[in-house]
Amino acid sequence: MKKIRIGIIGAGRIGKIHADNLRRHPQAEIVAISDLFASPELQAWADERAIAIVTKDSNELLNNPDIDAVFICSSTDTHVPLIKQAAQQGKHIFCEKPVSMDIRQTEEALEEVRKAGVQLQVGFNRRFDHNFKAIREHVKAGSIGETHLIKITSRDPEPPPEAYIKVSGGIFMDMMIHDFDMARFLSGSEVEEVYAQGSVLVNPVFGDHGDVDTAIVTLRFANGALGVIDCSRKAVYGYDQRAEVFGSKGSVASTNDQANTAVLSTEQGVISEKPLHFFLERYNNAYIEETEQFINVLLQGGEVSVSGEDACQAERIALAAKISLRDNRSVKLSELK
Amino acid sequence: MKKIRIGIIGAGRIGKIHADNLRRHPQAEIVAISDLFASPELQAWADERAIAIVTKDSNELLNNPDIDAVFICSSTDTHVPLIKQAAQQGKHIFCEKPVSMDIRQTEEALEEVRKAGVQLQVGFNRRFDHNFKAIREHVKAGSIGETHLIKITSRDPEPPPEAYIKVSGGIFMDMMIHDFDMARFLSGSEVEEVYAQGSVLVNPVFGDHGDVDTAIVTLRFANGALGVIDCSRKAVYGYDQRAEVFGSKGSVASTNDQANTAVLSTEQGVISEKPLHFFLERYNNAYIEETEQFINVLLQGGEVSVSGEDACQAERIALAAKISLRDNRSVKLSELK
Amino acid sequence: MKKIRIGIIGAGRIGKIHADNLRRHPQAEIVAISDLFASPELQAWADERAIAIVTKDSNELLNNPDIDAVFICSSTDTHVPLIKQAAQQGKHIFCEKPVSMDIRQTEEALEEVRKAGVQLQVGFNRRFDHNFKAIREHVKAGSIGETHLIKITSRDPEPPPEAYIKVSGGIFMDMMIHDFDMARFLSGSEVEEVYAQGSVLVNPVFGDHGDVDTAIVTLRFANGALGVIDCSRKAVYGYDQRAEVFGSKGSVASTNDQANTAVLSTEQGVISEKPLHFFLERYNNAYIEETEQFINVLLQGGEVSVSGEDACQAERIALAAKISLRDNRSVKLSELK
Amino acid sequence: MKKIRIGIIGAGRIGKIHADNLRRHPQAEIVAISDLFASPELQAWADERAIAIVTKDSNELLNNPDIDAVFICSSTDTHVPLIKQAAQQGKHIFCEKPVSMDIRQTEEALEEVRKAGVQLQVGFNRRFDHNFKAIREHVKAGSIGETHLIKITSRDPEPPPEAYIKVSGGIFMDMMIHDFDMARFLSGSEVEEVYAQGSVLVNPVFGDHGDVDTAIVTLRFANGALGVIDCSRKAVYGYDQRAEVFGSKGSVASTNDQANTAVLSTEQGVISEKPLHFFLERYNNAYIEETEQFINVLLQGGEVSVSGEDACQAERIALAAKISLRDNRSVKLSELK
Repeated sequence: MKKIRIGIIGAGRIGKIHADNLRRHPQAEIVAISDLFASPELQAWADERAIAIVTKDSNELLNNPDIDAVFICSSTDTHVPLIKQAAQQGKHIFCEKPVSMDIRQTEEALEEVRKAGVQLQVGFNRRFDHNFKAIREHVKAGSIGETHLIKITSRDPEPPPEAYIKVSGGIFMDMMIHDFDMARFLSGSEVEEVYAQGSVLVNPVFGDHGDVDTAIVTLRFANGALGVIDCSRKAVYGYDQRAEVFGSKGSVASTNDQANTAVLSTEQGVISEKPLHFFLERYNNAYIEETEQFINVLLQGGEVSVSGEDACQAERIALAAKISLRDNRSVKLSELK
Repeated sequence: MKKIRIGIIGAGRIGKIHADNLRRHPQAEIVAISDLFASPELQAWADERAIAIVTKDSNELLNNPDIDAVFICSSTDTHVPLIKQAAQQGKHIFCEKPVSMDIRQTEEALEEVRKAGVQLQVGFNRRFDHNFKAIREHVKAGSIGETHLIKITSRDPEPPPEAYIKVSGGIFMDMMIHDFDMARFLSGSEVEEVYAQGSVLVNPVFGDHGDVDTAIVTLRFANGALGVIDCSRKAVYGYDQRAEVFGSKGSVASTNDQANTAVLSTEQGVISEKPLHFFLERYNNAYIEETEQFINVLLQGGEVSVSGEDACQAERIALAAKISLRDNRSVKLSELK
Repeated sequence: MKKIRIGIIGAGRIGKIHADNLRRHPQAEIVAISDLFASPELQAWADERAIAIVTKDSNELLNNPDIDAVFICSSTDTHVPLIKQAAQQGKHIFCEKPVSMDIRQTEEALEEVRKAGVQLQVGFNRRFDHNFKAIREHVKAGSIGETHLIKITSRDPEPPPEAYIKVSGGIFMDMMIHDFDMARFLSGSEVEEVYAQGSVLVNPVFGDHGDVDTAIVTLRFANGALGVIDCSRKAVYGYDQRAEVFGSKGSVASTNDQANTAVLSTEQGVISEKPLHFFLERYNNAYIEETEQFINVLLQGGEVSVSGEDACQAERIALAAKISLRDNRSVKLSELK
Repeated sequence: MKKIRIGIIGAGRIGKIHADNLRRHPQAEIVAISDLFASPELQAWADERAIAIVTKDSNELLNNPDIDAVFICSSTDTHVPLIKQAAQQGKHIFCEKPVSMDIRQTEEALEEVRKAGVQLQVGFNRRFDHNFKAIREHVKAGSIGETHLIKITSRDPEPPPEAYIKVSGGIFMDMMIHDFDMARFLSGSEVEEVYAQGSVLVNPVFGDHGDVDTAIVTLRFANGALGVIDCSRKAVYGYDQRAEVFGSKGSVASTNDQANTAVLSTEQGVISEKPLHFFLERYNNAYIEETEQFINVLLQGGEVSVSGEDACQAERIALAAKISLRDNRSVKLSELK
């Protein structure tokens, strides 16, 4: 039985999630993990999982001829150099989103990937969510006819710490980039124009770093359809991730997942569960599926579900939103070329 | 028992609805009805309801000293002159929306109303809908804390005929004016800035008359909150009228009403009722309540629930949306002054 | 325009509801109302509604040749003599449920009705409820195939006062008689066998009067289908009235009605409205419709929707349940003959 | 790190599910698997999972001193002798439900378990379902006050093959035994009396084997609460597994799980997903959790979540239901002693 030998770069939360999900795949084998702060705890964690190599130096993975593919889960600023180096070493790549905060650099990295002929999948995990997939399938099957409106709600249960806000790249590049990808995924059409409104309503610390914490972004698609994403860094009732696509023959909409279906009726009212708390709960299965599909493509060939070009497009929309908010004007993606 | 004697101007669908709702109020008496096309059918309709005067000439009502209040249900272009004349005659006024398509004229009419000291209520019936009222009450009670986001969905089941499209004043003034009022009502805050995107996706006839049939309008409120309204002239599954207000302590959202709660589960899926078909079904009780409240104010004093200034503000937002769509730029309401 | 002239016997809550609903019908005219305790308040109430005759003596109505139909809304023990007398006087009859607590007497009353050839409709108002009607229509249309199971939930928000409990006839004859009728209505089939279990869990006062306040009744229908009704005198969250019919091709189920669709999401959970509080709220429209249909049958001919035989069958099931609970055994309806 | 070494007896569907779930536990190690029909396919399946011993003879497991615990997943008639033998060999036992179809035998097996002092957990997997657990937790926490009514819906999507029907032990012992356990679990109270009604409505083959395919069972609990279970062998829309507990302070109810939350609205209606198809989908996580808890008890001590006595009680209720249906009378559990 053929096995794909994998090195994981970056042992933060998401790196470890991918590791544990990869271990479920009978044809995936984690050979090595690297992290700048490789600690005794990481060594213990790796031992439990029989991961042979634990290192501070990602070169040990990238230069290791036994490794077929790398998962790049380190900080965003390292993505581009790591992709280039991995591609040059002929390794397939799974890279977390965003590839970078500078489209030129992202494009350069993708060019390297193309030259090397390796596979690259980007971590837009939400495309693998059961609810969003169901919407996509209805849209593709023509159940709602021609697409007219796309609506996405994207609200985190709590804002990240200030240290992260500083380097996050801002709400559009960090948080809504998922939604920009989702808008393209659900509609099957390209965004041509973007208008963004934003406010600092959750915590002034966002304003201190030139960011907003509440935003509404309007999208115009190539086919004339319109889209809107509403976003907040803090929904006290939990992770709020909904979408709707409306068209000439109807509408398809998804709500959140809940821990259970129990409903309590008392004198106080009829009470059901809150949405699952955050992305680890909501997208648990989506993370499993994205890794599985990536491994299967490496084993069987074919195209990855989320390409480098998908990453680029989402970054372009994020950049347009950033300019739109700064200048308070509508921005066409064609301006960015 | 004191009675309010009423004259109805305009015997179209909405005029007749108001008439039948007024008949439910023990202290309202319909004395007269006027319509340019006063037909034998109208005479018969009035006879059944024991309405004494049926006339083609609204002056017969406006000059009739026995009439305390008029319901202006004629075409929009007649509203301003009728309001002025009614005010000068000292009659209280219930006027359908919009007051006019020209804010200057609306303001002039309101000035006349103020001078005369009569009551004027505008027909934003949705403020009386049980679902929207429940949202408003939660917002007012502080259940969701400070308001951050307001979302409104407004979709008709079918477009109006071309004859109407021509004179409708466009999607913002005709259809979304209700939603602009709803945004102010739900948030309890004023809109300061508007950005509109629109497309012709339902029927090219809208484009022929310089209108759009699908639109997304972004609003910025005085308190920094953001709003968005998505609008379509055609939702094949029925009248889609939902709203959500999201804030620092949570969210409150309403869905549509259905004819019944029966759910059918078969091999094909789990099927529930569509939303109530159109405004007559959905807002049936809201129409009853708006008339009742108007009559009660005339009997007991106090302030009407929807003032002339409310009409003005909604018109200003509609105008800003119109300019925004034409110029593809964000428009501040302060520009309109 | 032909009018049906009506006399109402019994001016309690339900008598007054029927009166106000009858006033909505353009071809119904209330001529008289009688009540043993005809008070000045009743006189005032009747004056407001222009009801000419207010009397303590029901004979004044029954002997009045100007009256076409009577609504019998007095206490249950008066129903049978009043039905007989009204029939003998050639008056059509609307009678509240149950007709009596003794099937022999009910049958005698029906015999009189048959002889006189007058119409008799019984007040099983729930057959006119939008949710139950929708279930019935699906069953009739064959959407769920052959019926296998029928489930009814019937819970009051609060128990009646002790004075009423004493004379109510017990939970089966007073409260569940509606559900027994509903079981027949929804299934379109006859009940053949009954098993009842009951407990005193809400309030010992029920036990003091030989009654129970919580019950589960199992039904076997002629076609082999099985049914179950669960019943409680006290559901603190409101009036709980649900039904489900399950068959070879699927299931159709209804839930309760709510005052509005608003849903509040906070840190505490996702909270929606409780069911409408009690029968006046939930069955408001059903009461209107049952009177309307009765009047229309009197005007246009045809068969009433709820016949005397329907009343008899529900009473038979209630009696079987009573015997079943007393003897703790299954009781066939054929035993009662 | 201590490991629990496990042998699995019976390599049918459920045996293999337990095997794969056990492999997720870092401290569980499957040493052997036995099956009367140990085939080359089973050997291949075991090889993939590195299970060392594959045998036709369960004695090889039961006599193997390296094995700490056995999972008894063979046919029901083998459970009792296997439990006795395993207990005598000092092995902990996980046994599928029902332990047997003869309570005397079940009691004898439990006696052997007690003497040996080994742990025994019975496979009532539904106690680990997220929805039923949530109900149980609300009941335990007192959210609904004193329990008055318990309702369980239990419907399979399709009947088993005739070969299975013949040996299944009948609907009460085979299918509803889960529901009898659930009734005890949810209420935290003991069943004292049972009345069962049943019909053959799905397929005459059930009648051919003296069984029914549609049943309603009424339960009376020690604390006076009443329960009802409705059961069908065929719900065409999928596996229907719901429960409700109603009490003095309110009600808590769970609905089914669905593959996704997407809702499609078209001219035809509003369509959502059917319930998850069958027990493998619905109880996937429950199976994982029951094995995990069993292993954890073996590692850390404490009491298993589903004891032998729980199995006995469910069997007693099933037997009472069987007698009740045969004799068409209510049966007290005390009669069975």
